[in-house]
Amino acid sequence: MTRLYVHEVVTRDGFQIEPRFIPTEEKIVLVDRLSETGLHKIEVTSFVSPKAVPALADAEAVMAGIRRHPAVGYVALVANPRGAERAAAARVDEIVLVLSVSESHNRANVRRSTEESFAGFAEIMRALDGTGVKVACGMATTFGCPFEGYQPLDRILRFVDRLVGLGVGSIALADTVGMGDPRQVRDVCSEVRARFPEYEFALHLHNTRGMGLANVLSGLEAGITHYESSLGGLGGCPFAPGATGNVCTEDLVHMLHQMGHDTGVDLDRLIAAARGLPALVGHDVPGQVMKAGKSTDLHPLPPQLR
Amino acid sequence: MTRLYVHEVVTRDGFQIEPRFIPTEEKIVLVDRLSETGLHKIEVTSFVSPKAVPALADAEAVMAGIRRHPAVGYVALVANPRGAERAAAARVDEIVLVLSVSESHNRANVRRSTEESFAGFAEIMRALDGTGVKVACGMATTFGCPFEGYQPLDRILRFVDRLVGLGVGSIALADTVGMGDPRQVRDVCSEVRARFPEYEFALHLHNTRGMGLANVLSGLEAGITHYESSLGGLGGCPFAPGATGNVCTEDLVHMLHQMGHDTGVDLDRLIAAARGLPALVGHDVPGQVMKAGKSTDLHPLPPQLR
Repeated sequence: MTRLYVHEVVTRDGFQIEPRFIPTEEKIVLVDRLSETGLHKIEVTSFVSPKAVPALADAEAVMAGIRRHPAVGYVALVANPRGAERAAAARVDEIVLVLSVSESHNRANVRRSTEESFAGFAEIMRALDGTGVKVACGMATTFGCPFEGYQPLDRILRFVDRLVGLGVGSIALADTVGMGDPRQVRDVCSEVRARFPEYEFALHLHNTRGMGLANVLSGLEAGITHYESSLGGLGGCPFAPGATGNVCTEDLVHMLHQMGHDTGVDLDRLIAAARGLPALVGHDVPGQVMKAGKSTDLHPLPPQLR
Repeated sequence: MTRLYVHEVVTRDGFQIEPRFIPTEEKIVLVDRLSETGLHKIEVTSFVSPKAVPALADAEAVMAGIRRHPAVGYVALVANPRGAERAAAARVDEIVLVLSVSESHNRANVRRSTEESFAGFAEIMRALDGTGVKVACGMATTFGCPFEGYQPLDRILRFVDRLVGLGVGSIALADTVGMGDPRQVRDVCSEVRARFPEYEFALHLHNTRGMGLANVLSGLEAGITHYESSLGGLGGCPFAPGATGNVCTEDLVHMLHQMGHDTGVDLDRLIAAARGLPALVGHDVPGQVMKAGKSTDLHPLPPQLR
């Protein structure tokens, strides 16, 4: 089986929408636990305006406090050259940019046109020149926009091409609001990989309509080897209250292992970390394996049969 | 695309474990609503001892009260010849027997050995002789037993062979506690279909560990055309408290339609019926499309972009 790589986004994508501020020390403890599980990358935080995302206002303190594992890539989201400089000063391994394929979602999400985003990315690349910090990009609404619907394949391919041309090193194709279905995800991923066969693509999936892990199967079929997910399934979508959020990391790793794939992840440690989440965030979380246990966790016989 | 068939089990598999008794009239109203959605079969109730399953003690009254749609098959579970006679008297179209592939689960579930179950099925077949009532069987723990783990393929095939020999007309391969993963479900279904290519198999999946819809994809790949599911994802497993239950009907149909498959089901009516469930059962239910809406339900632009 192909080696697969799991990128954890809970402390960024999950925590950014939590109503309660997660204390800096707790964020550091969680990142340190996650660093010991064999995950490939951890998206730790965002270097954006504390006014825009108060939940992650402690980005510098979190990056300074974590204990870095040499095999893990530590990633942070940035939105402009100032954020990139802050991230570089905090010695992140990689920054992640965000761009929506749909014009209206880009405006809603980052308050600029996609053309303005591309121009901004060029400035960010210049700001990082010589720092050695890698650059990734999350391509939001690749599998559907909540305002515009499905996006044309040629627009998706053109955006990938421009990002590659700017020097972005890897792209996460994101199903931001869980509109992707297994056929479409397979088709889009296959087309994108066929055009850029040597390039690193990740899939960033949401489980908004229950299709998260089904869409992972389509990614596997299309040869995608990197998957972004969130511990406990935290994160989510403001357009689907009550629906679940990102694909759940431990549920993803559990499925991949059951299928015989190698992720390098210690699933038991991951589940143990996930089980600490409800107390940390103050509410139940969508993860299922943390509640049901692994498929291989057998139960004792009922008393009358012993 | 192949025509697919959806079997609804909520009023049997879902309601049987609800702590609150769902009033007979409400069960009838729900079955009548479901009858208008284009579902292929509805498993309405169980003709078993009211002491064993008090939630379904009103089986006769429910069957007598529903308005039958000519295109829908009305099914009830039975456990012995007496139940079969009651079901035939209530004019069900089909009874469903239950057998576990694993010896210990069969003992835990129906308090007899699998050999005793087979002997009992022969008696039931005799009791139904000449009634015109069809017979199906649910093969529990086909994809894993919570006490014994995974079951040998040759045992699964031998059980199918014996059921076919007894005159059972269709078999639902059941992932009773959600232990199946997409590779195993694809492999087992492919083997079973290769041995019995003309026989009708359904897949009865649970979403206990988040793999429900991913396992549906494997069923499709193996050529399975019938799927059993539960409105709102009701139902579940006593070994996984807090975990979700059966695959959710409207989430299943939504995925199949998004992929371009034809189920004959009116998804909007199904979602409307699902949205009535929380009030009926008195708690939140796991269904996701009922909360998030369909992938094609677009949202208005945020005010600043209008």
